Amino acid sequence: MYRIVLACVALLSVAGSVVAAERPVAPNGISFYPDYMSWKVVAPSYREDKGQLRIITGNDIAVAALHAGTKPLPDGSVLAKVAWKAEKHPSFPVATVPGAFAQVEFMVKDAKKYQATGGWGFARFVGNDLKPYGKDASFVGECFGCHTPVANNDYLFTHIVKTP
Amino acid sequence: MYRIVLACVALLSVAGSVVAAERPVAPNGISFYPDYMSWKVVAPSYREDKGQLRIITGNDIAVAALHAGTKPLPDGSVLAKVAWKAEKHPSFPVATVPGAFAQVEFMVKDAKKYQATGGWGFARFVGNDLKPYGKDASFVGECFGCHTPVANNDYLFTHIVKTP
Repeated sequence: MYRIVLACVALLSVAGSVVAAERPVAPNGISFYPDYMSWKVVAPSYREDKGQLRIITGNDIAVAALHAGTKPLPDGSVLAKVAWKAEKHPSFPVATVPGAFAQVEFMVKDAKKYQATGGWGFARFVGNDLKPYGKDASFVGECFGCHTPVANNDYLFTHIVKTP
Repeated sequence: MYRIVLACVALLSVAGSVVAAERPVAPNGISFYPDYMSWKVVAPSYREDKGQLRIITGNDIAVAALHAGTKPLPDGSVLAKVAWKAEKHPSFPVATVPGAFAQVEFMVKDAKKYQATGGWGFARFVGNDLKPYGKDASFVGECFGCHTPVANNDYLFTHIVKTP
């Protein structure tokens, strides 16, 4: 029995490594987080200019901190912003609904590691092949530049939704 | 020790009953589901006509069936549609973001119990006091009437989002 358990552990470790190896990695070393659709909802949003519907989700550390109003968010917080092409519902055109997947972006909190960019590491994976965005690690300048107007909210545009 | 455990169990049972008793109930007997924000995301949507941003979440039974493409959804499936007032982001007005909570609606699958309305029980709870919608149980006629154009999709407007 012990041998079987050991064999299973070994097999699972190998399987885990393969899955990890297949994950795309951004030029700054941030790996794709495959579980982001299992995380809790932080908020939806609609970008009229981009023609995109979006959802922001967060891992447990991030969502707990956002609910508690803790700013800056603690290390280990990860937020995902997922975007789909916005389309009119075919049977109900006053409703705008998600079409094709566009991209997913991550913000990863590590105050020390990402000190130069507000404590946040940025990554974007584009299209159905999850192509990492950016030629080299300098791409984060673009992300951080866009987020600086909300420096007083820990560089986050998104506020967590309120429900009774 | 045994007495302490027993006392705790008794206390928790009382506390559980109080929480259950406080849940609002729709005129057709469907109780508010307090966990809907912990459920997985099915899709976001934007209702231009209502000025609302929405998220549809689903319990595990519903989300598994939607991913598998199982139609009609099995008994025990519950979907929540949560709506917030849509607002321009104060620092970034091309983004439309959720403001005040508007309402949450539930669709509860029980093919036998709700046979007259496509196997779905409907409920809506409005505003921060979660006021049950409808004067009496006949309010479901309004819900079901609106959903009949999508009878061929198990009366669901929403399709689960695709991600790679």
